[in-house]
Amino acid sequence: MNHGSGGSLAGKLIRNIFVKRFGMDEPLTDSAVLKENGLLLAFTTDSYVVDPIFFPGGDIGKLAVCGTVNDLSVSGAMPKYISASFIIEEGFSFHDLALIADSMSSEAKNAGVRIVTGDTKVVEKGKCDKLFINTSGIGMMKSGFETISSAMDVKPGDKLIINGPIGNHAIAVLGARKELTFSSPVTSDCASLNHLINNVLEECSEIHFMRDLTRGGLATVLNELADMIFSGIIINESTVPVEEPVKGLCEILGFDPLCLANEGKVLFVVGNEGHQKVLDVLRSHPLGKYSEVIGEIVDNGRNMVILNTAIGGRRIIDMPSGMQLPRIC
Amino acid sequence: MNHGSGGSLAGKLIRNIFVKRFGMDEPLTDSAVLKENGLLLAFTTDSYVVDPIFFPGGDIGKLAVCGTVNDLSVSGAMPKYISASFIIEEGFSFHDLALIADSMSSEAKNAGVRIVTGDTKVVEKGKCDKLFINTSGIGMMKSGFETISSAMDVKPGDKLIINGPIGNHAIAVLGARKELTFSSPVTSDCASLNHLINNVLEECSEIHFMRDLTRGGLATVLNELADMIFSGIIINESTVPVEEPVKGLCEILGFDPLCLANEGKVLFVVGNEGHQKVLDVLRSHPLGKYSEVIGEIVDNGRNMVILNTAIGGRRIIDMPSGMQLPRIC
Repeated sequence: MNHGSGGSLAGKLIRNIFVKRFGMDEPLTDSAVLKENGLLLAFTTDSYVVDPIFFPGGDIGKLAVCGTVNDLSVSGAMPKYISASFIIEEGFSFHDLALIADSMSSEAKNAGVRIVTGDTKVVEKGKCDKLFINTSGIGMMKSGFETISSAMDVKPGDKLIINGPIGNHAIAVLGARKELTFSSPVTSDCASLNHLINNVLEECSEIHFMRDLTRGGLATVLNELADMIFSGIIINESTVPVEEPVKGLCEILGFDPLCLANEGKVLFVVGNEGHQKVLDVLRSHPLGKYSEVIGEIVDNGRNMVILNTAIGGRRIIDMPSGMQLPRIC
Repeated sequence: MNHGSGGSLAGKLIRNIFVKRFGMDEPLTDSAVLKENGLLLAFTTDSYVVDPIFFPGGDIGKLAVCGTVNDLSVSGAMPKYISASFIIEEGFSFHDLALIADSMSSEAKNAGVRIVTGDTKVVEKGKCDKLFINTSGIGMMKSGFETISSAMDVKPGDKLIINGPIGNHAIAVLGARKELTFSSPVTSDCASLNHLINNVLEECSEIHFMRDLTRGGLATVLNELADMIFSGIIINESTVPVEEPVKGLCEILGFDPLCLANEGKVLFVVGNEGHQKVLDVLRSHPLGKYSEVIGEIVDNGRNMVILNTAIGGRRIIDMPSGMQLPRIC
């Protein structure tokens, strides 16, 4: 199960089994960038196996559209076309399937993408868990952002910005799974970020890197980034937004919010000069109202992620090796 | 289970639940054709849930590459890029996963396509059946074949040609599933047809329609074609190639070879003038050695598929409503 976590074991599985055999390019990013007749396309795929399929703030269908839209967007592409492939357990209700298709259709409209091709398979009862959805997506690379996934322009002094509180998606799904009741409701942040990201790319300069904070959470993205740039990263815990009920449940269950999955959060790395403008643009959009600067890139000679804790200590944030919660997306 | 068959119930499910909500274009073909900056792309997706995952002539990995390559090819596109997304059951062996990745890699090389992006998910033991794979694919439309999937040029007198014996894939998978022994081995026809199809498109004229004969078999494709062209189709049973052990097992089990799935067979509809050349080109390729003219388009005022049986009778070939064999691909 830990190999499906998005953490270091997942990375090992992917590198050891697939990357060499398929001749894929490193670093592994959210989308492949393909050049055809002078046109730069981004191409990405994700299978969604979230359990349960309905949760506060979304369902597997909405998630499947948002996830692929976001993978294209953080690659510097304008998402355009989505495929939708369904593996359905025998006996699954038509009513629920229609609800999920409705939610995909409405999220696609929101994001301004078209679902253009699809497939359905049905397997015997007990051979899959209700419904799995794969979405693949094609986007058009925005000119000037071809190398953004490589983080090659990131340098010491750059600021790290996220667009709001982390951990909601994981806790909302866990809550739905375990039928937990919260003092105040926790809703998944599941959202298509392409319009928000587009605003930033159009209006701001010095955007050096973007990545959505999905499986493996902020901790995974920060460690991957540190490895890519061979520099240190310092995060100030007191500035990382986490909603109270999420914080509370993490304390009770021993989860680290930094490792929890999100489905509507993106990390921007921005040059020091440009960061205030990015913050302003983000905060003026409904999906970025609670954006914060959470840390910066430092030249400490080691590709290490350091957390200045809220109580004045320091600790290393490691790549999560396994998973806190399985089947979160 | 019948909704996953590729037959008429599958068609109803897709139309009733997905097509309207997603605003997809009819007729539903194997790939979407997308126009971007003057470039015509084909985009397709398929999830593979074949049981068992290893069978004579292939495995789920080879199937996943061939299937998507073929869907692009019959749409008149040159397949270029493939995505690969894995849903893996907890405890599935690394050894088998590596074998399957090897087989995908080698088939991609064969077909001349690149696997450029991927995803892995792991679900708990018992929540999926060993391994499901989704592949999506991007191809470049070959100029002059933009409307081939619509069958708009098909007319009475056109000949129907298939590139060899039908039913092998379904029977090979069934044999592996039930551990049947055959008098002579039945091997899946699983193959990437893009080079064969390319030869035909480059060297022949009057190619009016192509479709691969997968789930639902020849019977499904013929019925879909008859509906698209509002014309009749006559098939001569004695000319439809079926290998002896496949024929034998069909007689024993009551299967109709016309309804059995294939993974390396394509139907061409060719103008009467051009059909001999197509036959010659097909027969000169290893995957087309046993090509045959199996029938023709007729103007009988009804969109009906008629079989002239080998013993001199006539019967209507209906769209299979359900399935003969589940999880064949």
